[in-house]
Amino acid sequence: VRTAYFNGEFIAEQNLCLHVSDLSIQRGYGVFDFFRVVNNVPVFMNDHLDRFFRSAEALDLDAGVEKERIKSIVHELIERNDLRLSGIKLTLTGGYSPGGYEVILPNFFITQHPLQPRPATNGFKVITYEHLREQPEVKSINYLTGLMLQKKLSADDVLYHQNGEISEFPRSTFFIVTKNNEVVTPAKNVLRGITRKKVLDLSNGAERTVTIDDIRNAREAFVTSTTKQVLPIVQIDDMIIGDGKPGKITRELDAELQELIKKIAGAQPTIFY
Amino acid sequence: VRTAYFNGEFIAEQNLCLHVSDLSIQRGYGVFDFFRVVNNVPVFMNDHLDRFFRSAEALDLDAGVEKERIKSIVHELIERNDLRLSGIKLTLTGGYSPGGYEVILPNFFITQHPLQPRPATNGFKVITYEHLREQPEVKSINYLTGLMLQKKLSADDVLYHQNGEISEFPRSTFFIVTKNNEVVTPAKNVLRGITRKKVLDLSNGAERTVTIDDIRNAREAFVTSTTKQVLPIVQIDDMIIGDGKPGKITRELDAELQELIKKIAGAQPTIFY
Repeated sequence: VRTAYFNGEFIAEQNLCLHVSDLSIQRGYGVFDFFRVVNNVPVFMNDHLDRFFRSAEALDLDAGVEKERIKSIVHELIERNDLRLSGIKLTLTGGYSPGGYEVILPNFFITQHPLQPRPATNGFKVITYEHLREQPEVKSINYLTGLMLQKKLSADDVLYHQNGEISEFPRSTFFIVTKNNEVVTPAKNVLRGITRKKVLDLSNGAERTVTIDDIRNAREAFVTSTTKQVLPIVQIDDMIIGDGKPGKITRELDAELQELIKKIAGAQPTIFY
Repeated sequence: VRTAYFNGEFIAEQNLCLHVSDLSIQRGYGVFDFFRVVNNVPVFMNDHLDRFFRSAEALDLDAGVEKERIKSIVHELIERNDLRLSGIKLTLTGGYSPGGYEVILPNFFITQHPLQPRPATNGFKVITYEHLREQPEVKSINYLTGLMLQKKLSADDVLYHQNGEISEFPRSTFFIVTKNNEVVTPAKNVLRGITRKKVLDLSNGAERTVTIDDIRNAREAFVTSTTKQVLPIVQIDDMIIGDGKPGKITRELDAELQELIKKIAGAQPTIFY
């Protein structure tokens, strides 16, 4: 039985239920964040908590607990559950609402889950799709279009764009490596990913507009997320990226990210894969 | 204690909870519909059920029950709960998902709630806001932007547009009456409201593009929804509609809609207000 945290108490995760008057169920209203735990050490937790509080503020939701208190709850969960490689998810919903449209008191819960190994891949093949996520800078629970597309998807993932301007994947960030070996990720209409931030730091990369034409001229492309870390993309629609194999800079950035996590967690996350 | 229906059983509504692994809570993934019960008679239930099944199909969610079965459940709820004026809400969520992104088996529940009287109004004052709902033709649970705006709203409601082309309110439909006494509602990027449909029938109205300029030239404007029925709008941003008082055709259409409901339910819904 795994333990979870819910509104001030530690409870069995299997009993963690919300009454259907909660605004997440009524109106899809809530925010979350998610980070990895490697060797029982939370990875980039501060960055994730900062983003969580920014998301909550954007939706005017008050978690009712301070950042330091959340950290101590997370550490207690890690100790109680003792999973070697896991993900911690914080969720803050609109809470129970008699009228179904007004926030009264949010519900806040934290769960911990064993993580699946990231998929082995010779490179993702993705397709583009014209769509703009609502409030993309907020890590909200709204994945309506992402899940609708998921079932029909023959590709590994779907890359959102608007009028040919690339934004992001439903759950991950997009990068290209230009002919000049510059690492570039879209600047606007995207969630500020934590892995995105680390990769920008590691690569001295740039945030700017990325178009479908930029993809056509790119040497490499890759996707980043907390669970995927850095994974190569070899095809986008009918465009083969580079020579159709995972790129060299992509591989290097993934290795550098693993090293960074090793420094934090005392173990390389790849040893679990 | 009110009774609700949940996945094949009648239970006390206060016990109707979903485990947090449900995709409504994880990913805002679900659809619903809502209709009124007047004098213990469901109003326009067939139209609402047809739309409910269309919404479910768009999200590839299977309620696991036929339309006729839902009708008999609704009648049993009405009998058990015996509320004079109420709303029935059908909700179909993505269901429990171990991975948090894949639909396995949807959750389906039906709840009944006493209805509040619709607000007395001398005419709504609303503001416009540039936004397009995701999958607007689907009655999904996603109201992220609507609820975000709600808290900051000094007006009665917010009217969505894109590049000056009006679509709808977060939870209601928009109509104008032109200088030629034509009743017009936006054709594209809107939910096909049931009250919208009835009002189009009653008024021999038209569905076409409505711009902010059309509003400037309109003689009347009004909003329709299942709970609001037909309510006048007297101001949109800084534009006063007509002479700033509820319009004549608006009032007539509201009266005709009440008559229609009286024929169905054997009582005028207004007697409850």
